[in-house]
Amino acid sequence: MHTPLNHDIRIAVSTVIFSLRARTEGDSLMIPLVKRTRDPHDGMWALPGGWLREDEGLEDAASRTLAETTALAPTWLEQLYAFGDVERAPTRVVSIVYWALLRSDHVEAQRAADGAPDNVEWFDVDDLPALAFDHNAIVEYAVWRLRNKVGYSRIAAGLLPDEFTLAELRSVYETVLGSRLDPSNFRRLLEGSEALVPTDSFRTGNHRPAQLFRYNAGPDLSTRGPIA
Amino acid sequence: MHTPLNHDIRIAVSTVIFSLRARTEGDSLMIPLVKRTRDPHDGMWALPGGWLREDEGLEDAASRTLAETTALAPTWLEQLYAFGDVERAPTRVVSIVYWALLRSDHVEAQRAADGAPDNVEWFDVDDLPALAFDHNAIVEYAVWRLRNKVGYSRIAAGLLPDEFTLAELRSVYETVLGSRLDPSNFRRLLEGSEALVPTDSFRTGNHRPAQLFRYNAGPDLSTRGPIA
Repeated sequence: MHTPLNHDIRIAVSTVIFSLRARTEGDSLMIPLVKRTRDPHDGMWALPGGWLREDEGLEDAASRTLAETTALAPTWLEQLYAFGDVERAPTRVVSIVYWALLRSDHVEAQRAADGAPDNVEWFDVDDLPALAFDHNAIVEYAVWRLRNKVGYSRIAAGLLPDEFTLAELRSVYETVLGSRLDPSNFRRLLEGSEALVPTDSFRTGNHRPAQLFRYNAGPDLSTRGPIA
Repeated sequence: MHTPLNHDIRIAVSTVIFSLRARTEGDSLMIPLVKRTRDPHDGMWALPGGWLREDEGLEDAASRTLAETTALAPTWLEQLYAFGDVERAPTRVVSIVYWALLRSDHVEAQRAADGAPDNVEWFDVDDLPALAFDHNAIVEYAVWRLRNKVGYSRIAAGLLPDEFTLAELRSVYETVLGSRLDPSNFRRLLEGSEALVPTDSFRTGNHRPAQLFRYNAGPDLSTRGPIA
């Protein structure tokens, strides 16, 4: 082992935080981006993040920098990947990226409570501009991870309010997977699942009343294995 | 954004590289460890690794430090997780850990060709000593990831020679999963899989000849998604 030569490599932490926005033509998968106000890439949109501090863990840094840049607190936060290509920034920066979920009913509440910073805007992941650094590739990887996880975990519990209709749940799956699902097959599949608990409440409105359901637990922690 | 304050955080790269060792009572899942020759944790066993250099990517650093410390070249290498707890080392070190596979027939060939360093020994993952730093927890997480992946990918192709019998393949699954599998069910399942291609060759020896198979491709790259 030589004396370490890497004191000029810096560590940043960034977060891809997903939320759903209801639209008449179906939900959209949205992420907040921060407009950069300095070089490199001054004026471009980038993922929320910042420098890792010496006295904080990686997940704490992800939460802190997300709160500082967007005033948001995630429902679910998990490490995505460490991006460390030599050429990804003008100076050497390794970015440890987290991906996160934010319940749709929490987005507006948090923005109202803490004030939305001026330089933050939400973007549809299917309609992003050219982002700073390698952030387009990072978002693409995060979406891929989300799509893989939605199949084998209760990840939708991180995007929905406590209680939801089967149609709302199906819309989450359709939005994340990017494809339509057959309503009756979906209902049959979900009704056989122990994870979904019917409530005594119904959603009323323009349509006939729809029963509300809830999950029996939060997003499936087993997807993180021994990393608690 | 403040001036970055994290120049005293260093980045290390380490690798958990698995191989199988055949034993009369069944295969064992083995990893090489390196005996430390300096503080902290002088004299304890640790994962092969080293410091990230300013001019190399993360995966290159994993390959380089693995070669330098163990003279091994993996069949398959993939990022596992970035470990960055503040207290995991006396100074602040973020370890970006890779997990890797090494075909059983390559282990001895590589050791013979390049010479096995004196301070490297192979350990059964089920019978590890107390390792330096948080390396026991890291190995535990790597084993968990391997067990999860073996179910939905051709990960066994990274551990076996080009051609193998169904009994040998079943032994890989049994060793990785840590449980016995029914031979006829296993045969039925695998014979229906397009991934497995029968050859014209047979393994002969003390038992009746067993047909040799090969995979139609290497370990499934789709497990890495857009990260090529």
